[in-house]
Amino acid sequence: MALSGLHRIAGQARAAAATTFHGVDAATQAPLEPGYPEATPEEIHAAVREATCAFEVLAASSGETRAALLEAIAREIEVLGDALLARAHAETGLPLARLTGERGRTCAQLRLFAQVAREGSWVDARIDPALPQRQPLPRPDLRRMLQPIGPVAVFGASNFPLAFSVAGGDTASALATGNPVVVKAHPAHPGTSELVADAVVRAVASVGLPAGTFALLHGREPRTGLALVRHPDICAVGFTGSHGAGRALFDAAAARPRPIPVFAEMSSLNPVFVLDGALGARSQAIAEGLKQSFTLGVGQFCTKPGLVIGVASPAWDAFAARLGELARAVPAGVMLHAGIARAFAEATADLRDVEWLSKGPAAVARVSAARFLDDPALHREIFGPFTLLVTVPDAAGLERFARALDGQLTATVHGDPGDLGGPATAGLFHVLAQRAGRIVLNGFPTGVEVAPAMQHGGPYPSTTDSRFTSVGTAALARFVRPVSYQDFPDGLRPAALQDANPLGLMRLVNGAPTRAAVGAA
Amino acid sequence: MALSGLHRIAGQARAAAATTFHGVDAATQAPLEPGYPEATPEEIHAAVREATCAFEVLAASSGETRAALLEAIAREIEVLGDALLARAHAETGLPLARLTGERGRTCAQLRLFAQVAREGSWVDARIDPALPQRQPLPRPDLRRMLQPIGPVAVFGASNFPLAFSVAGGDTASALATGNPVVVKAHPAHPGTSELVADAVVRAVASVGLPAGTFALLHGREPRTGLALVRHPDICAVGFTGSHGAGRALFDAAAARPRPIPVFAEMSSLNPVFVLDGALGARSQAIAEGLKQSFTLGVGQFCTKPGLVIGVASPAWDAFAARLGELARAVPAGVMLHAGIARAFAEATADLRDVEWLSKGPAAVARVSAARFLDDPALHREIFGPFTLLVTVPDAAGLERFARALDGQLTATVHGDPGDLGGPATAGLFHVLAQRAGRIVLNGFPTGVEVAPAMQHGGPYPSTTDSRFTSVGTAALARFVRPVSYQDFPDGLRPAALQDANPLGLMRLVNGAPTRAAVGAA
Repeated sequence: MALSGLHRIAGQARAAAATTFHGVDAATQAPLEPGYPEATPEEIHAAVREATCAFEVLAASSGETRAALLEAIAREIEVLGDALLARAHAETGLPLARLTGERGRTCAQLRLFAQVAREGSWVDARIDPALPQRQPLPRPDLRRMLQPIGPVAVFGASNFPLAFSVAGGDTASALATGNPVVVKAHPAHPGTSELVADAVVRAVASVGLPAGTFALLHGREPRTGLALVRHPDICAVGFTGSHGAGRALFDAAAARPRPIPVFAEMSSLNPVFVLDGALGARSQAIAEGLKQSFTLGVGQFCTKPGLVIGVASPAWDAFAARLGELARAVPAGVMLHAGIARAFAEATADLRDVEWLSKGPAAVARVSAARFLDDPALHREIFGPFTLLVTVPDAAGLERFARALDGQLTATVHGDPGDLGGPATAGLFHVLAQRAGRIVLNGFPTGVEVAPAMQHGGPYPSTTDSRFTSVGTAALARFVRPVSYQDFPDGLRPAALQDANPLGLMRLVNGAPTRAAVGAA
Repeated sequence: MALSGLHRIAGQARAAAATTFHGVDAATQAPLEPGYPEATPEEIHAAVREATCAFEVLAASSGETRAALLEAIAREIEVLGDALLARAHAETGLPLARLTGERGRTCAQLRLFAQVAREGSWVDARIDPALPQRQPLPRPDLRRMLQPIGPVAVFGASNFPLAFSVAGGDTASALATGNPVVVKAHPAHPGTSELVADAVVRAVASVGLPAGTFALLHGREPRTGLALVRHPDICAVGFTGSHGAGRALFDAAAARPRPIPVFAEMSSLNPVFVLDGALGARSQAIAEGLKQSFTLGVGQFCTKPGLVIGVASPAWDAFAARLGELARAVPAGVMLHAGIARAFAEATADLRDVEWLSKGPAAVARVSAARFLDDPALHREIFGPFTLLVTVPDAAGLERFARALDGQLTATVHGDPGDLGGPATAGLFHVLAQRAGRIVLNGFPTGVEVAPAMQHGGPYPSTTDSRFTSVGTAALARFVRPVSYQDFPDGLRPAALQDANPLGLMRLVNGAPTRAAVGAA
């Protein structure tokens, strides 16, 4: 379990460059051994070249093989035991209990995606058998299925060192559908990344897939990530992080001679609308729940509620005061790294003309809707334990305010039955559905289920592609493309498209879903 | 049925600018009345603003309403009768029989998409009911469905004045899923576009949807199309045309403050591999079929086979000679417009160091694989009746050549049972599946079925987004995005997500497809 301070390319630990950076203990800012190198252009090329060779094998592999790989990764991560948690705790400052939960979620996600890969119906097989007698022209036999897109670049996220990093949702989605992965480790947790990478390398070897199926590269310079995205054989990108970094990768991918898709999950205010009836009935409970939600993980969640909207009233003033009081009583937390702590301190210090309800440890401020709408600086996500209350003048102002919002991962409404029945609320929900990927009623947006019905992704700038999700089984749809086979004899068809349905898939035959063989009564 | 020479904005015929261009008789080059204006920035803004207002209504409309709209459009197009065909014939030079077929296809496509909209399961409803007893945390109720993305800009294609223009596949896909459409008419057939636009305007009014649901703008300057794509309220783009124009729109969309998806179907060589056994058994039939395919519509199909690959042999030489002979006997055709005719003449005249098998009316040339791979100029699509034969030295050269190909809409293999069984052919199919959206066996790529299993779209540069199709019912997936609803009471859920399944949709409940109500045994 000793850390080498090296990349992993084709299963080998190597590095051409000398050490240039260290992980840092988040609590003490002391450097952690070993040092890590910046990936060179040659190393990036080597990792992608190996991935491209592995793709030939991986694309032709069975769902069973891919499932075995994902399950082996989960097992190997568990085998890392407390050493993994200890290193992640040191590098990120996240509490051990949280990291234990995140490891559980990471492994559960790998096993869920293994089930989906094994079952196989994700290929969305569609079969339109030939109609040789059709007039004026016969219809050919057409059969279509999803196939892997090619080597995927995955960028580890600072705030989920396990669930959205080396073996997180992006990697699991890509591998489940037959794509090799080149991970750029987040430089704030290189040791955690190296441990997990070794688990993946062992898992790849254990199922007999080519070593090029997975690579880990270190680096903290923007040019390193950009070079990976610009490599001509990289076919898609998964990223979770800041708007600035995500947009830079998106722009680089779009400017390539051959543009590629980028799934960047970036920034979101996750607005919470508190309606009058709910405020009257359970102001205290909402304030308590909101405090929990916006300070969870020291406010370093992409779904942190950063904006809370209510109608001007004495009850709203009391709610604001209570939230400020709760925020002042929150214990101070350790942030993920010094850069995030500094950015948080600067962003809150820069806020002008706001009413401060708490300046810390968790921060709460309040402005009028008019002031918010006038000042684009207030629309920026502040990553950390901060939320901004916005007062609208009347109930009609809620929907008007919602219309002015940018794209969001989530939007939340707290309302009682008396609030919710009318046309005003229907209008609010309608507007929110156009601006957010997930709408939560009487709950809080932190906490993202890994489930078929999860949508974690919304209109820009919350993500670069609102048509996809980065959490839940639908996340697999990001790294695939359809291919149709016309007039192939059964023996030459991929198994998923053969008449007898040997894989037992749910398929669309003549437009109707069925698991039956083609031609069966 | 008189043509006004005006745009259609919110159902009104209007234009601020004076006439700047005319349609032209493709056969005689004589200008056709009336003249047409270039859309001004104000007109573009007005069309998009009306679309944005209409979106509120359209997004909330039922599948039945959208189906009624699409069916009304088909009826109104049929009501236009011979006047539509005559104008399209004059503007494009396409024969009346072809245009009659294309009209049939356009109306059939509208009616098929109406069926899909009415049936409703395209929303991909996914339901994960709450698990209140789950440990360590209860699972919330999560329900996810696809929703329209917002106003779509559609660019009419020159080569399909009906099926890929004002009321073509892009418009039908967008309307079926609840998105308003602003069409930029192709300047080579403004009169045809105006006639069809009037049909759409009448259909919109007949079903009681807002007039902003549809607009038609004229223009021939690149800046006009770019201004439409850059409008902040346009949410997606559909385009069929040249690589240069498609890439310019893609780049403009990616550079927006809020990037939007662009579905540009651009250029493809549609390679055809002729294996030795097939050549020995039916050389004459393949040559005849290929001639038909590459000269169909004067070679102005996006699926025209522009590259034919065979192994050096006397039989291949004889095939080449025969194809040249057939090409010389093809009657000369009228091309879509003078610009395309000029580009075709120049591109064929520019070819250097090729063996000419026919210089016209249909053109066939031949080069070695080594020569082809050395000269990027030979990799460019030549739009029109031209195909390039490529000789590879041996059977292993077929797969090697396939690996060097760019992304393609289609790839075709002609092979007899003796050719197809072995590992060499398996490798070829595998490589082609990574480079093309549709693989045709023993057929020809022209002829694109409108069916659930059709994939019309491949890796770049054939399209800007290989994950989607522009033909077939899956084309609807381009203009939608998922939204999850968490912990909504049944009465506040969209009908598609309600427990009782009042719309009778096929849904994914707890990960399993069913039409049953939630909670039903």
